[in-house]
Amino acid sequence: MGQKPITFFRQVLALCAYPDLLDDNKFPEDAKQRARRILGACGGHSIGAYSASQGIECIRQDVSRYIEKRDGGIPSNPDNIYLSTGASDAIVTMLKLLVCGEGPDRTGVMISIPQYPLYSAALADLAAVQISYYLDEDRCWGLDVAELKRALSAARTHCNPRVICIINPGNPTGQVQSRKCIEDVIRFAKEEHLFLMADEVYQDNVYAEGCKFHSFKKVLFEMGPEFSSTVEMASFHSTSKCYMGECGFRGGYMEVINMDPEVKAQLTKLVSVRLCPPVTGQALLELVVNPPQPDEPSYSTFMKERTEVLAALAEKAGLTEKTFNTVPGIICNPVQGAMYTFPRITLPQRAIDTAKEEGLAPDMLYCMRLLEEEGICLVPGSGFGQREGTYHFRMTILPPTEKLKVVLQKIRDFHVRFTKQFS
Amino acid sequence: MGQKPITFFRQVLALCAYPDLLDDNKFPEDAKQRARRILGACGGHSIGAYSASQGIECIRQDVSRYIEKRDGGIPSNPDNIYLSTGASDAIVTMLKLLVCGEGPDRTGVMISIPQYPLYSAALADLAAVQISYYLDEDRCWGLDVAELKRALSAARTHCNPRVICIINPGNPTGQVQSRKCIEDVIRFAKEEHLFLMADEVYQDNVYAEGCKFHSFKKVLFEMGPEFSSTVEMASFHSTSKCYMGECGFRGGYMEVINMDPEVKAQLTKLVSVRLCPPVTGQALLELVVNPPQPDEPSYSTFMKERTEVLAALAEKAGLTEKTFNTVPGIICNPVQGAMYTFPRITLPQRAIDTAKEEGLAPDMLYCMRLLEEEGICLVPGSGFGQREGTYHFRMTILPPTEKLKVVLQKIRDFHVRFTKQFS
Repeated sequence: MGQKPITFFRQVLALCAYPDLLDDNKFPEDAKQRARRILGACGGHSIGAYSASQGIECIRQDVSRYIEKRDGGIPSNPDNIYLSTGASDAIVTMLKLLVCGEGPDRTGVMISIPQYPLYSAALADLAAVQISYYLDEDRCWGLDVAELKRALSAARTHCNPRVICIINPGNPTGQVQSRKCIEDVIRFAKEEHLFLMADEVYQDNVYAEGCKFHSFKKVLFEMGPEFSSTVEMASFHSTSKCYMGECGFRGGYMEVINMDPEVKAQLTKLVSVRLCPPVTGQALLELVVNPPQPDEPSYSTFMKERTEVLAALAEKAGLTEKTFNTVPGIICNPVQGAMYTFPRITLPQRAIDTAKEEGLAPDMLYCMRLLEEEGICLVPGSGFGQREGTYHFRMTILPPTEKLKVVLQKIRDFHVRFTKQFS
Repeated sequence: MGQKPITFFRQVLALCAYPDLLDDNKFPEDAKQRARRILGACGGHSIGAYSASQGIECIRQDVSRYIEKRDGGIPSNPDNIYLSTGASDAIVTMLKLLVCGEGPDRTGVMISIPQYPLYSAALADLAAVQISYYLDEDRCWGLDVAELKRALSAARTHCNPRVICIINPGNPTGQVQSRKCIEDVIRFAKEEHLFLMADEVYQDNVYAEGCKFHSFKKVLFEMGPEFSSTVEMASFHSTSKCYMGECGFRGGYMEVINMDPEVKAQLTKLVSVRLCPPVTGQALLELVVNPPQPDEPSYSTFMKERTEVLAALAEKAGLTEKTFNTVPGIICNPVQGAMYTFPRITLPQRAIDTAKEEGLAPDMLYCMRLLEEEGICLVPGSGFGQREGTYHFRMTILPPTEKLKVVLQKIRDFHVRFTKQFS
C-alpha cells in the first residue's frame, strides 16, 4: 500500500542477515549495536538458528520492559511473554489451549459482531461454540455489558462459555474503547469466570481526538488486587500494524496474566511442537519494543518516519469518514483507530431481491459490482457478521492519500449509480 | 553448531531487507538480481508485505522447476506447491486436513517407530490414532512391508487408517531407504487406500556409499500411471536441514499429488487462516531452489561452501558410527543420511531397576547421568519410541569435527563407567 518501512528496522535486519555488514561504515552505530545484541542472543550468533520455543530470552525481557513503560510501571514478567508467528498464531494457540469438551459441554467463546474472521475460522476448526455479541453501531460500535449478558445467557443453554475475545482498537469497525467500557468488560469477565483475550494489535493506531488506547492489563491492575490477582487474561500484539506494517515478517507476542502454572506448562508444550517463531520476526519485534532512543543517531529519522506514517493514517481516517458521510445511503462512524472503516449502506429492495436470485449476500452483490465496474475490492459486511437486515462493507484506509481520494470518489459515484440502477 | 551460513543466501536476504544496499558495489550482481526478482514478486516490492497464503507465486514456480530437475523431468505443477512456516507447519496442517471421525471411526495414522515426536504430538493434539510400525534395527532401520501389514491389521479393529507417514532419510535413525523399499511402500499405500506423507527434509543429507536419495514422487511416477494417477501423497521439504541449516527462518514447502480438487480447496482455506508463511523464509526457499548457476559470479563460492558443509557432515557421520562401535555395549547402525545417530545401548539390570525406582525410563536415567557428569545432552530413545526392552539415545552429528571427537570420547568413557557402576 506504499507505506515505507522504517529505515532503522530494515538496517538492523540486514545487519543480522549478513553480519559482514557490521564492518560497513554506512550503517549508524545504534543499528550495529542492536544487531550485535540480537545476534549475541541467537544460537551460534546466527538468526538462522532455532530459538527457544517461547522466543529469545532477551527479546522477551525487552517486551516486558516495553509493556511496563506503556502501562506506567505495572510489572510484566518475561516468563509470561510468548513470542509468536504474528498475532494470529498466538490467538489460535490460545484458543486451542482453552477449548475443550463435547456436546453441551463444548467451550463457548464470545466474539464481537462484526468480527475479524480469524476468530470464527479458528472456532469452527476447533469445534468450539461461537457466542456472538453485537457491537452498537449507533454508539460508534460501542460495547454494552447488557448485550454481553444477553449473549452469554442465551449461550449457556447449549455450551460452556469460558472465553471472551475483544479487539481494541476494533477490526473491522475502527472504534477505540473507553476506559469505562474496558472496566465493564473486566468486571463481567470476573463475574462470569471468563478468560479474557485482548487483541490489541492496533494499540498505536489511534487517531480521533479524545480517544486514547487503554491496555486491558493496565486497567485490570488499576482496578485493584481483587481483579488483578484473579482475572485470567492474554493480550496480543504484532509487528504487522501500527506504524510498522511489517506483516510479512510474522512477528508478534502474547502476555499471559494469572494463568495457572500447570496450564502455562501445557501452553509451553503446545508452542514447542512447531519449534520456534521465525527469528527474523523476533528480531523485528525486538526493534519495535526497543526503538532508537533520543540520544542515539537514528532517533530523529525514526521519529520522523513514525510520525509521518501515523499522521498520514490519521488524515486518511478523517478523510474517509467525511467523504462517505456526504453520500446519501452511506453512514460511516468515525475511524477512531485501527486501519479500517465499516460503513453501513442502504441497498434498494430490488438489489436485495436480485442478490437473493443470484444466491449472493446483498452486500456481496454490491462489492462484486464495484469490483467489476471500478476494479476496487471491498469486503462485504456479511464476511464479518452484522445485524440481520443491515449491510456494510469494510475498506482499509491504507492507500496513499491521493489514491484514497480517487477510490473514495469512485465508490461514491458507484453507490449513487448502483442505487439508481436498482430503484 | 558452528555451521557457517551460505554467503550468497545471506547477501540476498540482506538486500531484500534493506534494498538501499542494491546500490552498494560490495554485493555481487547475481545476488542483486535475485533480490530484485524476489522484491518484484512481493506486494509493494517489500518483504514486509503479506504474500498470498499459499506463498509467492514466482517462488512456487521455482520450487516446481527445482522438483522437476531433481526428479529427471517428471512434471510438477506450481498450483500443487504450498509454501510453509518450516516443514513442521506443513506436516501439522496436512494431518489436520486428513484427520476426522470419532470413536472407532477416528482416523488412524501410521508412523514409524522410532519416530520424530512432531508426529506423535500432532496426532495427540488432533485426537487421531497413532498406528506404530517398527523399523528393523537389525537391517539398518529398514522398513518391511510385512510389519506395515501387521500394524495396519491390528489397528483396523479400533480406528480407520487413512494415512501413512515416512521419514526418508530417517529422523532419528539416519537410514536412507532403497528404491525397492519405496516401491513397496507405494504399492502398500495404493492397496490399502492410504494417503502417503513423505517427510523428505533431509533429501540432500546422504553420506553412505551406495546410498542415494529417491524421492517418493519420482518413484511413484516411474511405477506407471496405475500408481502415478491414483496414489494421493504430499512431500515435505524445508530450508532448515541439508547444507543450509537455516532453521530460524522457518521456510519450507509441500507438494501435493493426486489430491481431490475439493479437498485442495479446503487445504487452501486452512492455510489462509494464518495469513501467510514468513516472507523471509519464502525468500530463503527461493534461493535454495534457485541457487547460483555455473555462469554466475557467486557460483564457485556457493559450491565450495555447500560441498564443505556436506563433506564435513559425511566425515562426522562415519566418525560417529566407527567410534560408537568400538564401545562394548553400544551398537550403532551406519549414519547413511540425515543428521542423527540412534545407537542401541545395553544397560545393566541394576541400572534398569534403579531407573524404575526413580520413576524414570532406563535410557532417561542414562542420559541424565551423562548430562550431570559430562554436560552432554542426548535425547533418550524412549522419547522417540523403541522396541520394548531395548534402549537407545539420539545424538546429532552436527558439532564441529574436533568437538565431536571430544564428545564421542566422553560418551565412550561415560558408558564404560556407567556399565561398571551398575554391574
